[in-house]
Amino acid sequence: MSPEEIAVLDANSAFYRAFVRRDLGAMDQLWAVGSPVACIHPGWDVLRGRDAVMASWKSLIEGETPAISCGSASAHVAGDVAWVVCRERIQGGPVLAATNVFVRESGAWRLCLHQAGLVAQQSDEPPPGAQA
Amino acid sequence: MSPEEIAVLDANSAFYRAFVRRDLGAMDQLWAVGSPVACIHPGWDVLRGRDAVMASWKSLIEGETPAISCGSASAHVAGDVAWVVCRERIQGGPVLAATNVFVRESGAWRLCLHQAGLVAQQSDEPPPGAQA
Repeated sequence: MSPEEIAVLDANSAFYRAFVRRDLGAMDQLWAVGSPVACIHPGWDVLRGRDAVMASWKSLIEGETPAISCGSASAHVAGDVAWVVCRERIQGGPVLAATNVFVRESGAWRLCLHQAGLVAQQSDEPPPGAQA
Repeated sequence: MSPEEIAVLDANSAFYRAFVRRDLGAMDQLWAVGSPVACIHPGWDVLRGRDAVMASWKSLIEGETPAISCGSASAHVAGDVAWVVCRERIQGGPVLAATNVFVRESGAWRLCLHQAGLVAQQSDEPPPGAQA
């Protein structure tokens, strides 16, 4: 794994950590400011723009949403853009599959796009946590 | 909209057209060959690698999957990577929200990542087809 891919996976981990810790400030800092952002939560329609996306995270972080863990994450870097696919497991709940797209801003990887969706059909992939 | 964004939206349209026309050859040509690819169909786990992704499209194209249309698509280009968020409507069925990530290969935009998920909560966004 390249140092760039490791840095992207670190940013990806920081994203889930911000959610688990219900740290809205950290979540805000993780999202891009110089690039259009969008977010598709499980079962939600497309949210476009930083205001709508951050309002959704505020409602989720302040709400009853349970903790989530990320596993089986793989990253690919192409210039100043990177994308991660991974699995998410909601504590005591279902598995989800997710896409996270990052852009490099002032040397830091920031999210510009997140989509997560429920996995209805389980595969034989290792469970989240088996791989970082 | 920039010429590059238009080209990306054209590639995005070609992707849905290949699916509607059940044209596996066109679908194959639309996916990247020089970049890792991944795909998350609605309710499915993460599929990684070209073989797994193309096998899934073969099974969907040869199966009973109904026609799908794409709407409300917006594109953003950053270097040789671009991403589209859009809504999909399955004929006579539900609305989905989707992410499509493209890489530029030999001057053509090719898919490296697709995720689609069911929208359980309808928003007041215009329906697919209202915007190209």
